[in-house]
Amino acid sequence: MTVDIITIGDEILIGQIVDTNSAWMSRHLGDIGATVRRKYSIGDSAEEIRAAIAESLAASNVVITTGGLGPTKDDITKRVLAEMFGSPLVRDEATYERVERIMALRGIEFNELNKAQALVPACCRVLPNHKGTAPGMWFDTPEGGVVICLPGVPFEMEALMEESVLPLLRERFELRSVVHRTAITFGLAESMMAQLIAPWEDALPEELHLAYLPSPSQLRLRLSAYDVEESEARKAIDRQFELLMPLLGDYFVGWEGDTVQSVVADLLLARGESLAAAESCTGGALSAKFTAMSGASAYFMGGVVSYSNEVKNQVLGVSADDLNKYGAVSEPVARQMAEGVRRVCGTTWGVSTTGIAGPTGGTPDKPVGTVWMAVAGPDGTEALCLNHGRLRAQNIERAATAAINMLRLRLLK
Amino acid sequence: MTVDIITIGDEILIGQIVDTNSAWMSRHLGDIGATVRRKYSIGDSAEEIRAAIAESLAASNVVITTGGLGPTKDDITKRVLAEMFGSPLVRDEATYERVERIMALRGIEFNELNKAQALVPACCRVLPNHKGTAPGMWFDTPEGGVVICLPGVPFEMEALMEESVLPLLRERFELRSVVHRTAITFGLAESMMAQLIAPWEDALPEELHLAYLPSPSQLRLRLSAYDVEESEARKAIDRQFELLMPLLGDYFVGWEGDTVQSVVADLLLARGESLAAAESCTGGALSAKFTAMSGASAYFMGGVVSYSNEVKNQVLGVSADDLNKYGAVSEPVARQMAEGVRRVCGTTWGVSTTGIAGPTGGTPDKPVGTVWMAVAGPDGTEALCLNHGRLRAQNIERAATAAINMLRLRLLK
Repeated sequence: MTVDIITIGDEILIGQIVDTNSAWMSRHLGDIGATVRRKYSIGDSAEEIRAAIAESLAASNVVITTGGLGPTKDDITKRVLAEMFGSPLVRDEATYERVERIMALRGIEFNELNKAQALVPACCRVLPNHKGTAPGMWFDTPEGGVVICLPGVPFEMEALMEESVLPLLRERFELRSVVHRTAITFGLAESMMAQLIAPWEDALPEELHLAYLPSPSQLRLRLSAYDVEESEARKAIDRQFELLMPLLGDYFVGWEGDTVQSVVADLLLARGESLAAAESCTGGALSAKFTAMSGASAYFMGGVVSYSNEVKNQVLGVSADDLNKYGAVSEPVARQMAEGVRRVCGTTWGVSTTGIAGPTGGTPDKPVGTVWMAVAGPDGTEALCLNHGRLRAQNIERAATAAINMLRLRLLK
Repeated sequence: MTVDIITIGDEILIGQIVDTNSAWMSRHLGDIGATVRRKYSIGDSAEEIRAAIAESLAASNVVITTGGLGPTKDDITKRVLAEMFGSPLVRDEATYERVERIMALRGIEFNELNKAQALVPACCRVLPNHKGTAPGMWFDTPEGGVVICLPGVPFEMEALMEESVLPLLRERFELRSVVHRTAITFGLAESMMAQLIAPWEDALPEELHLAYLPSPSQLRLRLSAYDVEESEARKAIDRQFELLMPLLGDYFVGWEGDTVQSVVADLLLARGESLAAAESCTGGALSAKFTAMSGASAYFMGGVVSYSNEVKNQVLGVSADDLNKYGAVSEPVARQMAEGVRRVCGTTWGVSTTGIAGPTGGTPDKPVGTVWMAVAGPDGTEALCLNHGRLRAQNIERAATAAINMLRLRLLK
């Protein structure tokens, strides 16, 4: 069974947005043992949509489209599908009521454009969209193929895939078995990790495949087995990870779904401890990593974004002399920020960052990318200096994660 | 003249990496008036590469492939092209010498794999790669089409496009002119915007095309003209946007590249004013929007992430009585947070958010999604209550942007 993915929208074709949907879909299709044969990106053109779907159905059993389902005139996927399947557009009552409810909740008038969101080709199976207005649609072709249309908004597409598409595909097709397990690591670059675990990797049994999946905030190590008996494969993979653990040591953060911050959250909750953050160069991004997780208020009390020296001094109590003498990006300032926010917020732990995010502002002594970070706790304060290079967004992301990782290592001690 | 882009590589097809190359290529092709008809992503399979190139050439004059040119076994593009054009692989002396030089520079042995990088089909025009080892290749088909093969490494592909491909395409084809302009709006959902500007949209001249490009933090309106004399088209588009402006009013934020926060930053800088943020439900995300922009320290002094009531009271001076009486998510608390952070940080403006991000924590009075926000300034404090629904990540993103937009409207007064 193979899948073709078609992303529809002029905005992708002219390069105004980068298509991240199809990578997400590929990963999740791969997880259930489906193989993606091809991806297409095409424009908002009825002719192109028809042609691409027809071509895909000639080679693959399943075609999934994203995009072109919105309420405005340039969104034409639904109309094209209705024509292709010779099926009239009819109102789906469940969708109609849901859109009406959403509009009322948002205080938006339930106008003709919104009402049209509830129109679907009569022959399709409606896949309810609990995160937005445009429903997903599932079409069975006379030849035994399947065409699935999803909205292009990433979190709507993701919810529809997880709630409807992936389970329905599993029901419908005999998928080859595939078993994955992924370990999350932090602190070593891909090439150094490869060197560290080379003896283990070289001794892996032939049927297990290792993939390195790097991102700015973690390096994931995935072991996969294909076309195997599932419980045996799980055992074989678990056995290999057991062998890997002594090599990984503290670089091991957790398993798929864990992040450095989720592990710190679990540790703090288990210990009944609390945290506050003092951020200069990360400017709110470190706090946002905790507050993005539901339930953060149980351990995360808040913090101070001390972007200016005045705020560092007046709100956090960083010594004005030290700010003058050592500069804002320095070990004494990082330490006093962590200690200050711990005191001001009355928490068990205080974590801080102060650095030069770039792209400008560096000096010969403190080049762009220099970040001092500190963790203050009941048993004292530790500080660390790192440099992640010249790119602002990457520096902010990596400094925030590295500071949280410092706290993780401290909590594990 | 139309172009098809084919990205080659299993890592894209299984979703291990997101394809950013094709968006970059599309933008730059669009800038010279070339239209991208379709993008394909296919795997490292000789059969798929042959099929995709043949399909593309049947519909487009130009096919550009990226990827599959490296020295390892799974990189097969060059071999497939040599077979397709019935042309033997021969050594390109200039490439051979360049690769030899690069290897010496990097201290890497100049082995058979590296020497093979200098082999190219005899019939192609070699496009020199000054940033890496694999050269680009330009093939003319007997039917007048063009196949261009580029490496998949982004900065190598970009340099080859700018130095060779774009200039050569301009020489070879009579390209149509294309003009885009995009207005950024905030505050109206797509369907309501469509209704608001319907009279204007219906009266658009036929040669101008409107697209709605929504995202959680803005709605972009793009006007495009194709096959037109460029300066005339620019004038026509500008004229239409002039007509649109009175309808958009304050919903208009700026032009492509602007965001609500970049416009606020420009306004603050122009006025020599400063800002601090007091965040509860947005938990750092609002501050992070400013500090993500280089140069933020000129106007953004920092702020307080007052996630707990204690921090609201002790750091920002929010009345403990009011916290008890009205609750943390209330107008008096939002006002006192904005006023408190303005006072504590000594800034011209203070902005605040306090709400229930979800998915839990709602009450009948204050359902999930309820957010109070306030702006405190020299001429007093304003507050506003919004509800963006049940999804945590969306609530945080939208509340942060809406609060910044409140400040934008205040600065525009």
